[in-house]
Amino acid sequence: MSKHENIEVRLAERPRGLPGDACWKVARTECAEPADGEFLVRNAFVSVDPAMRGWMNEGKSYIAPVEIGEVMRAICVAEVVESKHPDFAPGDHVTGLFGVQVYALSDGEGVNKVDPQLAPLPMYLAALGMPGMTAYFGLIDVGRVETGDMVVVSAAAGAVGQVVGQIAKIRGCDVVGIAGGPEKCAYVTTELGFDACIDYKNEKVGAALKQYCPDGIDIYFDNVGGDILDAALGRLARGARVVICGAISQYNNEGAMRGPKNYMSLLVNRASMEGFVVFDYVRRYGDAAREIGGWLADGRLKCRLDIVKGLPNFPETLRRLYTGENFGKLLIEV
Amino acid sequence: MSKHENIEVRLAERPRGLPGDACWKVARTECAEPADGEFLVRNAFVSVDPAMRGWMNEGKSYIAPVEIGEVMRAICVAEVVESKHPDFAPGDHVTGLFGVQVYALSDGEGVNKVDPQLAPLPMYLAALGMPGMTAYFGLIDVGRVETGDMVVVSAAAGAVGQVVGQIAKIRGCDVVGIAGGPEKCAYVTTELGFDACIDYKNEKVGAALKQYCPDGIDIYFDNVGGDILDAALGRLARGARVVICGAISQYNNEGAMRGPKNYMSLLVNRASMEGFVVFDYVRRYGDAAREIGGWLADGRLKCRLDIVKGLPNFPETLRRLYTGENFGKLLIEV
Repeated sequence: MSKHENIEVRLAERPRGLPGDACWKVARTECAEPADGEFLVRNAFVSVDPAMRGWMNEGKSYIAPVEIGEVMRAICVAEVVESKHPDFAPGDHVTGLFGVQVYALSDGEGVNKVDPQLAPLPMYLAALGMPGMTAYFGLIDVGRVETGDMVVVSAAAGAVGQVVGQIAKIRGCDVVGIAGGPEKCAYVTTELGFDACIDYKNEKVGAALKQYCPDGIDIYFDNVGGDILDAALGRLARGARVVICGAISQYNNEGAMRGPKNYMSLLVNRASMEGFVVFDYVRRYGDAAREIGGWLADGRLKCRLDIVKGLPNFPETLRRLYTGENFGKLLIEV
Repeated sequence: MSKHENIEVRLAERPRGLPGDACWKVARTECAEPADGEFLVRNAFVSVDPAMRGWMNEGKSYIAPVEIGEVMRAICVAEVVESKHPDFAPGDHVTGLFGVQVYALSDGEGVNKVDPQLAPLPMYLAALGMPGMTAYFGLIDVGRVETGDMVVVSAAAGAVGQVVGQIAKIRGCDVVGIAGGPEKCAYVTTELGFDACIDYKNEKVGAALKQYCPDGIDIYFDNVGGDILDAALGRLARGARVVICGAISQYNNEGAMRGPKNYMSLLVNRASMEGFVVFDYVRRYGDAAREIGGWLADGRLKCRLDIVKGLPNFPETLRRLYTGENFGKLLIEV
C-alpha cells in the first residue's frame, strides 16, 4: 500500500480570548496503515464551527475538551481511501469527526455515508449536516414553533441562522433576522425570504425589534448572547420561548461570560429559556435530513457556503468566524 | 353611621435603591361611606412582599406600577365593617388588594372570603395565600416536580421558600435550602425537615451545592438571583428546570440587574429556565388551598410568620425584607 503524508493541525496551547497562531502546531506525519476493522479517509472539507472555541477550553462541558497535542476536533466530509472495515469501501463518501488534518483513521464510530449525487459534498456539513440539524431540532423541538409565530434569529446569515429562518418561513411564521452589515441583511431578506433583517452593526437592535415585532417575539433563537440576547429578552411576547443555541459574542471573553441582565423578562412574560445539544437528536437526523433535503431540492431552502481553500489557513479562518467576517457556512476545502 | 379615621401609607416618590423613608407619606384621612355595591373593610394584617419593590418602579411589567400619591398596593386580610354589597356582610373576613392603610373601600373585585375557624387570619397571607400559591404552582406546574428530584430552593426560610421545600419533601424529593445565617438554616432542617440548608452568609454556596447535590440539581427554585443563581446554574443536572420566581438580591440595584453569567449551563445540561406570575393560576387557587390546608391541618406543613405591629412601621419593615432580616413570612398587624 502507498504511504500517505498527513498534515495535522494540533492544539498547542489553550487560548485566552481569540485563539492566536500560537494555539496551533502544524505537524507533518506519515499515516499509519488501517488495522483490521479500520479505514483511512482523506478529508475533502473541514467544517469550521463556533463550538470549536468551547472544545479548546479545559473543564467539563457537553463533550470532552481537545487535549494539548491532539489533532483539533472537527466534523468533516471525506472519501475512504483504504479500508479493512467490512462496511466501508474505498470511494465511499462519509462524514465524521475526522479532525483538522488531511487523513484520518476511523473505526466507523459516528461515521455516516453520504451521497454526492444527492447534494454537493459541502452541503453535508451545512444544511444537511450539524448546522441544519441544529436549526431543525432547535426550532421545532426546543422552540416548539407554531404557524403565525414571530420568530427572531441572530447570526441570521450564519450556518444555523439561515436554516432556522427559512424553516420558520416554511412553517408559516413571521421571521426577523439579525446580522452584521448591509450585505448580509440584504441576502437574508432578498435571497432567503426573511420578512426583515436588522443590521446590528448599524442599527439599534432594541428599537428595530420594537418596530418589526410590535406584538413581541414568540421564539428568539439565539446564536450570539450578549447585548443582542438582552435586546430580544426586552421584546418577548407572553409565553415566549428563547432557544439557547450558542453565544458566539461571548466565547472569546477573557473573563466570565456576560449574563442576560434582562432575564427577569422571563417572569414578566411567563417565558422560558432553554438550551440544547444537537447530538441528543442523532436518532432523528435521518428524518430531518430527508425533510431538509426535500426543501433544498425544490428550492424552498437555500444555504450559502463560505469556502476557504487550504488546511494551513485554519487558524485565520477560525478567527474570521468569531469576528463575523464569514458569510454563510464556513468550511475549509482540503 | 360612624366616621372612620384612616391612616394611609402613600407612595411619595420612586425609590433609587433601597426605599428610604422619603418614598412614603403617611396621610390621615376620613373614610368615605361605601356607595351602593361597595363595602368598607378594616385591615387586620398587611402582607409585606418582595414584589412590592417592583410595583414602586415606573414602566411596563406584569402589573401596573403604583402611581405617586396612591396608597401603596398590598395584599391584606381584613374584616368587613360596613357594607352596601349583597355578598359581603359586616363581620365577614376577606382577603384582597386593600393597600397599606387601615380602612379600604372595595367593590368586591378580587376579594375572597376566608374562614378564621379553619386557619389563623395571617395564614391567608402566607401558606394559604399568595406565597403558598406561588410555591405550589411554581414547583408543580413550572418546575414539573417528580418523586426523587433533587430540589434546591433559595430564601428557604422565607414566605415562599419554606412552602416550596416542604411540598417537595411531601412529593418525595431530596431538598436543599439556601438561607442566611445559622438560625434560619437550623429552622429549615430541624423544623421544616429539609435534608440540608446552606448558610450563604457563612458558606461557599457553590462548594456546598457540590457536596449536597453530587448528581446535580433537578429543580432550582430561585427567589434571589445574583451569585446564588449563578452557583445553582453551575450545578444543574441534565434536563434541570430553573424556576424564576423572584430576584430579591437584585431589586434594589441602582443600575441594571445582574444577569446569570452561568446561563450557558442551560445548553450544556439541556436545561430550561422559566418564569411565571402566580396570578395566572387564580382559577386553581381553591384546589391548591385545599391541599395545602390539609397539610397544615395534619402537621405535615408548617409556616413561620414574622409579624410586626403597627402600620407606621411599614417603611422600615419593607427594608427588613430586602436586607434578609425577616425570618418567615413578613406581615404587619394593623
